[in-house]
Amino acid sequence: MAKTDKHKSALQEKRGVSQPEIANSTLISKIQKKRKTRPEVQNLINGIFKGDITSLSRSITLIESTNEDHLEKAKSIIIACLPKANKSIRIGITGVPGVGKSTFIEVFGKHLTSIGRKVAVLAIDPSSTLTKGSILGDKTRMEALVKDKNAFIRPSASGEALGGVARKTRETIILCEAAGFDTIIIETVGVGQSEIAVSSMVDFFLLLKLAGAGDELQGIKRGIIEMADAIVINKTDGENIKQANIAKVEFNRALHLYPKKESSWQPKVLTCSALQNEGISNIWEMISEYKNLTETNNHWTTKRNQQNKYWLIQTIENQLKGNFFSNEKIKKELNLQVKLIEDQKTTPFAAADYLLNLK
Amino acid sequence: MAKTDKHKSALQEKRGVSQPEIANSTLISKIQKKRKTRPEVQNLINGIFKGDITSLSRSITLIESTNEDHLEKAKSIIIACLPKANKSIRIGITGVPGVGKSTFIEVFGKHLTSIGRKVAVLAIDPSSTLTKGSILGDKTRMEALVKDKNAFIRPSASGEALGGVARKTRETIILCEAAGFDTIIIETVGVGQSEIAVSSMVDFFLLLKLAGAGDELQGIKRGIIEMADAIVINKTDGENIKQANIAKVEFNRALHLYPKKESSWQPKVLTCSALQNEGISNIWEMISEYKNLTETNNHWTTKRNQQNKYWLIQTIENQLKGNFFSNEKIKKELNLQVKLIEDQKTTPFAAADYLLNLK
Repeated sequence: MAKTDKHKSALQEKRGVSQPEIANSTLISKIQKKRKTRPEVQNLINGIFKGDITSLSRSITLIESTNEDHLEKAKSIIIACLPKANKSIRIGITGVPGVGKSTFIEVFGKHLTSIGRKVAVLAIDPSSTLTKGSILGDKTRMEALVKDKNAFIRPSASGEALGGVARKTRETIILCEAAGFDTIIIETVGVGQSEIAVSSMVDFFLLLKLAGAGDELQGIKRGIIEMADAIVINKTDGENIKQANIAKVEFNRALHLYPKKESSWQPKVLTCSALQNEGISNIWEMISEYKNLTETNNHWTTKRNQQNKYWLIQTIENQLKGNFFSNEKIKKELNLQVKLIEDQKTTPFAAADYLLNLK
Repeated sequence: MAKTDKHKSALQEKRGVSQPEIANSTLISKIQKKRKTRPEVQNLINGIFKGDITSLSRSITLIESTNEDHLEKAKSIIIACLPKANKSIRIGITGVPGVGKSTFIEVFGKHLTSIGRKVAVLAIDPSSTLTKGSILGDKTRMEALVKDKNAFIRPSASGEALGGVARKTRETIILCEAAGFDTIIIETVGVGQSEIAVSSMVDFFLLLKLAGAGDELQGIKRGIIEMADAIVINKTDGENIKQANIAKVEFNRALHLYPKKESSWQPKVLTCSALQNEGISNIWEMISEYKNLTETNNHWTTKRNQQNKYWLIQTIENQLKGNFFSNEKIKKELNLQVKLIEDQKTTPFAAADYLLNLK
């Protein structure tokens, strides 16, 4: 009940904060806002540090805004949160539709709060419209977790390029950590590219699978198996048990074919039934084992540093390209050069040199 | 005999043109060179138009140089050659070591010159040191083709990033075409990335395979099969014939699983024995069939335009990144920002914004 109100108020806030401010962005309102900025930002920061969910939601809304004023505020909040961030374990969960992701996350999340952990569930989904529905749907389906005061579920920022969505999710992680959430679950809703984005922002990457239909090894993107730190075969219950155990053997064999991971962790295959609440605690134990191993061999920190560097370089490269190709002069000249190439008056390389020298 | 001399003289030229000029690049020598530039460039252009191999080799050496003066000259030559270029068929050939690539190219090339075509063989190989050996090796092995006055074999520019090698190969194609070569064969020597580079500069992409050992479908990079316009099973002779025919059926089945190509060409599987000179003319007939089809449905021109656009965009993006990250100030500040990120004083995104605003 409390959580449903929270959800509503988050939606109201979203409207309250963004709509009118975007509309009246005249000089006067800007000055007025500047004056209000500091106390407002400070209040949000204080709220986050106290674990206040409203402050957290409101700050995430600022991160997701496209309004420059909001983004300035968001930046201050993030920088303030940084020293308190970074202390959680970040778990990525992926799997095709039908694998039972929502049920799994709900049951897994409830298990974690029952042993005293605070769980935030975020989602990455670069595919605009369909998204909102599916995540809000998830939220409705994860009823028990929604009502849990030690859990926080946030629909993903949608309707944008993967780069933007990923950035917002990364920054949201920081705020959740500063608000005291020690376990961050990031769910991929999209396909393909979004798994890569998620795997480069989590400590542990878990692939949910189903047994059966003889497709244990077919139809799986090789790249995703390579990224996985564990494969969990869900719906291992009733008539599925036999097939699930066969699949387990096959996956194990397949995983051994891949070169050893930098973490020196040997990816594991587990079975569970989220519906029957079976095998769930094993999964958390395995993840804890991973944490112990990689903290001991220092891979934990190395990986987080590598991820930060990856996002730094990615952001710069995307921005460089974006800035160049969105320039009006370049746009016009690019079309002219393409025409010249088609008419065999220049080469792609000479045209590139020409365009690069324009700026 | 004539061709061996040609090879030697090409090597001498390479030394003659590049070494001393790089050494004495003082102001005086630069001025002297400027004075000599125009007639030298014009002579080379005239030579290329007459199909003179020495002028062609010398001009390619200018393209491959790292000396700025040479590159300026190369640029003038390329622009002059453009109106006479673009009229050949460009064929990419790839295959793992041991598949008999050199023998195939030699026999295929000899067949083409025997029916009146002029054949240039180039190679793409981004992997520096090993390269030179292997390509010169190929050249020694392709003895019959080397001696053929209607063939031109050029070792690849080596020891550089793929982007640079690709650019040089693309520009070399233009010169070869202007020199009257109507068939350009581009061989991949590297693995992985170089196939993508080659497939984006040829009209027809041919994958050489072997039958047998039950690995017809395993161990092939899916991406390469998707790029192929034809799979040719080489060494279809003696005891291999039965296995080759089985493989042919399997490959055909596999090829039908892929979505139809934009060219509306259905990729074909052929068998041949380069050693026994069997099935070679069929391959050329198939390629001619492809040319007819795509010229009729206009895909021929569309594809070349797409390739040009691809190289234009690729070159710009690589240059943007290169310019940014090689800047001394950025290099220094990048390290500082990475340190700040590691110390949790900033985020990758804030650091990216900071660095992008420095320039």
